[in-house]
Amino acid sequence: MAIITLTTDFGIKDYFVSSVKGAILKELPDVTIIDISHHVSPFDISEAAYIIRNSYDEFPKGSIHIIGVNSLSTPDQRPICARINGHYFICGDNGILSLICHNELPEEIYEITIHPEGIDSLFPVKNCFVPVACHLARGGLPSLLGPKRNEIKQLNELKPVYREDKVLIGYVIYIDHFGNVVTNITRKQFDEVAAGRKYNIILRQKDFSITDIKIIYDHYHDVIHDFSKEFQAMGRTLCVFNSAGFLEVTLYKSNPVVSSGANQLMGLKKGDTITVEFEDE
Amino acid sequence: MAIITLTTDFGIKDYFVSSVKGAILKELPDVTIIDISHHVSPFDISEAAYIIRNSYDEFPKGSIHIIGVNSLSTPDQRPICARINGHYFICGDNGILSLICHNELPEEIYEITIHPEGIDSLFPVKNCFVPVACHLARGGLPSLLGPKRNEIKQLNELKPVYREDKVLIGYVIYIDHFGNVVTNITRKQFDEVAAGRKYNIILRQKDFSITDIKIIYDHYHDVIHDFSKEFQAMGRTLCVFNSAGFLEVTLYKSNPVVSSGANQLMGLKKGDTITVEFEDE
Amino acid sequence: MAIITLTTDFGIKDYFVSSVKGAILKELPDVTIIDISHHVSPFDISEAAYIIRNSYDEFPKGSIHIIGVNSLSTPDQRPICARINGHYFICGDNGILSLICHNELPEEIYEITIHPEGIDSLFPVKNCFVPVACHLARGGLPSLLGPKRNEIKQLNELKPVYREDKVLIGYVIYIDHFGNVVTNITRKQFDEVAAGRKYNIILRQKDFSITDIKIIYDHYHDVIHDFSKEFQAMGRTLCVFNSAGFLEVTLYKSNPVVSSGANQLMGLKKGDTITVEFEDE
Repeated sequence: MAIITLTTDFGIKDYFVSSVKGAILKELPDVTIIDISHHVSPFDISEAAYIIRNSYDEFPKGSIHIIGVNSLSTPDQRPICARINGHYFICGDNGILSLICHNELPEEIYEITIHPEGIDSLFPVKNCFVPVACHLARGGLPSLLGPKRNEIKQLNELKPVYREDKVLIGYVIYIDHFGNVVTNITRKQFDEVAAGRKYNIILRQKDFSITDIKIIYDHYHDVIHDFSKEFQAMGRTLCVFNSAGFLEVTLYKSNPVVSSGANQLMGLKKGDTITVEFEDE
Repeated sequence: MAIITLTTDFGIKDYFVSSVKGAILKELPDVTIIDISHHVSPFDISEAAYIIRNSYDEFPKGSIHIIGVNSLSTPDQRPICARINGHYFICGDNGILSLICHNELPEEIYEITIHPEGIDSLFPVKNCFVPVACHLARGGLPSLLGPKRNEIKQLNELKPVYREDKVLIGYVIYIDHFGNVVTNITRKQFDEVAAGRKYNIILRQKDFSITDIKIIYDHYHDVIHDFSKEFQAMGRTLCVFNSAGFLEVTLYKSNPVVSSGANQLMGLKKGDTITVEFEDE
Repeated sequence: MAIITLTTDFGIKDYFVSSVKGAILKELPDVTIIDISHHVSPFDISEAAYIIRNSYDEFPKGSIHIIGVNSLSTPDQRPICARINGHYFICGDNGILSLICHNELPEEIYEITIHPEGIDSLFPVKNCFVPVACHLARGGLPSLLGPKRNEIKQLNELKPVYREDKVLIGYVIYIDHFGNVVTNITRKQFDEVAAGRKYNIILRQKDFSITDIKIIYDHYHDVIHDFSKEFQAMGRTLCVFNSAGFLEVTLYKSNPVVSSGANQLMGLKKGDTITVEFEDE
């Protein structure tokens, strides 16, 4: 039996998420429902895209992913179903799929026109996305959902900028549960422009002082080698490429609740820049 | 196999929820367990009732709903099991079922007297409600749980007040994850007293200024029509009847984390009044 | 099919937890995955141990428990798999199992050396613990995971101190969702040293005043008997042995969000002392 995942900005206190699950189970008692996240910041498509992009492909091919973020139907934003990399996505055509696809086109795209009352309701995730997901989970054809489309709304992601053959400017795209600051600089891009040169990663601190980091570790704990004892490394600022492949600024084993995460210490938030200066060879 | 849902004020950090799930799975490895909510405000029966009332019926008939909110057994508050609309509820007789039933009587009511040690323990949800739920999930008769009863504790809900044929006073009954302010005025009640007249919905702001809303939209996004671009509508105060059918005050696409929800902007909290003044015809 | 539980400090917003679940379901579509907690304070092994210790044994024997708290592999901290009380635990050898075992040795211990790339990655929970859990869930032998070991890292728990045959000093080991303050004094220890004597439990208040509690109730609601009406008991400080068997300080039906939990009122936090003075007979 298929897997249906849920990614929303609904939170988990209200009746929204459980109503969706109830509606799924009423149609398909044996389906597996997995929460990807219900804590996307309200209406934040780029955050939802970052979370989904880094987890959907862990699920088996054929999984069905419902995205309930900014999903209300308007004349300009119709509900769509698309196949990407063998997975089905059901969402509003609000640009999120272009972020998940990195601006390539999905393998198949359908506008959803069945369940018009559900589409037009105040709860399209339950009243439209759920019956569509159950249709697919039963092996139904996506072509029955509505007319085929050749395009989806495109959003442009912030891309790192590389200047004068020596400065790479990236942007903060995500702050995670640990307060880690994730940038849009990938290991691949970094290695290409670095070409083996030394570098300084310039981090503005909240108090306007500057930290520059001269090494990107392979593991968080590699920072321990710079100190004689682990406890001396606690709270130190360091950079790694995280498990999603992005340059990340973190404080070693810092607890953002009792002390500070990297984001708080440096006052960094989504959209802020991080600069890498490469030294002359 | 049956579905067992859980609604509690336990939160999701401690060992409480997973202990309950483990205890269920030890008896019934194939049952489906769904969280309705574990973030009910501690001991807040009316909040739990609002959440459950708007989601339980999405689940298949025969589902079993455990309510672990103010559920400790006292001489005055015995554990009960009741059937409402084909669903089973297991809870303390603390009045919550009267709110879920809108003061009608459940189809069947039993006081739970089996598992007396579990009832008397500090964790009756695990030690009493779980074996009762598993008994029902296996198809066991509810009449084996204990003596039949003809009544449950009744709580009176706040009802909107209608005065002098022109003022409708409702109360805030719930604040949701988005900071939306939900009142106890239903679409049906509103339409009945409005009888086609124009109206002003009077909203006190935190700074003592007053906003009056003259229209209740069918959809959140209908507010866009009043502006030339969507971004100009962002954060505007508007009213809709929400997906549960209640009059709701909301800020269009507002993120309560970075800016304010309707509740924060207007300083509204549970129990506050909202007034609708109808104009003379 | 086996049950796999997850206990982490990952939170539930990011892609971490759903990636782990996806990876499990890709290998074993029919396994049951249960969240024990994802809200362990970052890197807090003692908190994770308290949560797991009080819930794992509710699950059926043979359940597999993944612990993703401080689980990154370092030269000093290798991933291990151990059998305790018929349950399997997969975690870093960071001392957490010694807390779960109360310093007794697990029934079997293996260092995990298969999946070396996963061990060495930035996401060993997904890349190493998941395939190990799936191996066990399929009935695979733990002896295939790596070399057998005879010891695990030992951490010393704070133990209550008993002095001069009249003072028992315990420590706060956990603050729960309700703001209840849990100490490391068990009912068994208490009864042994009390030997029927009267006692004062000395609680320092935030304002430096002292409350002394002369009775430990069997149930939270037993406090009602000291008042003529329940509402008069609301918010009163009381002590019980909680459902895990530990001496707990709580405020009767207090909502830590709108008023204060016991922890806030008294300014108590993990590691603080609580003193019991026994009276001369």
